[in-house]
Amino acid sequence: MKALITGGCRSGKSRRAQALAESLAADRVYLATAEPLDAEMSDRIRRHQADRGPTWRTIESPIDIAPHLHQPGAVVLVDCLTLWVSNLLYARGEASLDDDFVALHTALRTASNPVVLVTNEVGLGIVPANPLARRFRDEAGLLAQRLAADCDRVELLVAGIPLILKDHHP
Amino acid sequence: MKALITGGCRSGKSRRAQALAESLAADRVYLATAEPLDAEMSDRIRRHQADRGPTWRTIESPIDIAPHLHQPGAVVLVDCLTLWVSNLLYARGEASLDDDFVALHTALRTASNPVVLVTNEVGLGIVPANPLARRFRDEAGLLAQRLAADCDRVELLVAGIPLILKDHHP
Amino acid sequence: MKALITGGCRSGKSRRAQALAESLAADRVYLATAEPLDAEMSDRIRRHQADRGPTWRTIESPIDIAPHLHQPGAVVLVDCLTLWVSNLLYARGEASLDDDFVALHTALRTASNPVVLVTNEVGLGIVPANPLARRFRDEAGLLAQRLAADCDRVELLVAGIPLILKDHHP
Repeated sequence: MKALITGGCRSGKSRRAQALAESLAADRVYLATAEPLDAEMSDRIRRHQADRGPTWRTIESPIDIAPHLHQPGAVVLVDCLTLWVSNLLYARGEASLDDDFVALHTALRTASNPVVLVTNEVGLGIVPANPLARRFRDEAGLLAQRLAADCDRVELLVAGIPLILKDHHP
Repeated sequence: MKALITGGCRSGKSRRAQALAESLAADRVYLATAEPLDAEMSDRIRRHQADRGPTWRTIESPIDIAPHLHQPGAVVLVDCLTLWVSNLLYARGEASLDDDFVALHTALRTASNPVVLVTNEVGLGIVPANPLARRFRDEAGLLAQRLAADCDRVELLVAGIPLILKDHHP
Repeated sequence: MKALITGGCRSGKSRRAQALAESLAADRVYLATAEPLDAEMSDRIRRHQADRGPTWRTIESPIDIAPHLHQPGAVVLVDCLTLWVSNLLYARGEASLDDDFVALHTALRTASNPVVLVTNEVGLGIVPANPLARRFRDEAGLLAQRLAADCDRVELLVAGIPLILKDHHP
């Protein structure tokens, strides 16, 4: 099972992704792309860790997430891809993100264990004036499309409620 | 029946919420959270009032909406929760909105009459640079999740079309 | 068949609309509302043209699109309405867009050939500070509502996946 959970800010994505992951395996890996750069972010990371409880192993990996997707016998939850895109844009500058995207996409397809990906819908507002923000939402949208195509299950969260966009049980 | 109607700007939420409310009771209360602070807002309020017609009673309540939810025999339409959150942030400053949210949530659960809530999806764009805007969309999203959990019916409006997210008829 | 394809930035709208149009007729007209005003836009236009391939005829029409909707025997793809609204706001200034909207709406209803319209969801972020941006998202949302009401099929694209909002086969 490969799943993508998407939705807006505070739509219940992380909670839903966690519940889905917990239904898939007793051994659970939380792949955190967030870096606690400021107090607001630290608060959010601590709150999410407290929500998950002690049955989860956490790996912090802001850039090189693909190698961590293979966790035989476990479920991997990646939270979240939009932060990863943001980290990549900072790390790669003007360069293409294609190699990073291909590496993740390949890892997703080849992992034998279940993987749950969380991403944010960021492209349903006004076109941002800032060119970097435009590139960010372009990259985030293209990545979500690319990965969703190889997921068995895709859900859009709205007000805490999952809307099933795709459900291909094997 | 407790219903939450959500969607983006100009997606047809108010019109849909009104039609739903009118199907639920002949005695109708419109609980308006808007304050006519400027000409643009006054125009919008007048247009919405004209749309509703004379069969509706209007209560203007920008802050203390919970006490008005109990209207035995009538249906109450709250339009809208995101303006209410905005009013609360202005009134409460840095303080938590939790007491306000709990009061509304309790009133929703205990009201014997039908209630239709309108809210806006505001969290599907780029993360705002402004910390207050970030707090606003966090609070609006958390409130929608909390209330949706206790609604029988939740709809997302897109291009005037209701998409049913939840429909629990008793 | 009249169809409206909506969704956020990089949600796969254009690709989906193209596939739908290609299923409807062998003679295909691409009605482009974009003007290549800068390098970023030129790139996007060229990429979309390459995606479509040589089986499509292209008409560039940033403002007067209604007369081009009638293409007996062909399918017309309008990509996209939000750019058209943006062009109209620039061309008309403070004036109402209602005449333009009525002309398009009438052409949509009276065309005997299939028409596929693409639009962007731009109203699910924070309210923009800029009054022109607020007017833009109001107009875009109202136009989408108006046209969706007369379409047989309306789809919301999320992560490349079409979510059917309306499907009225004749």
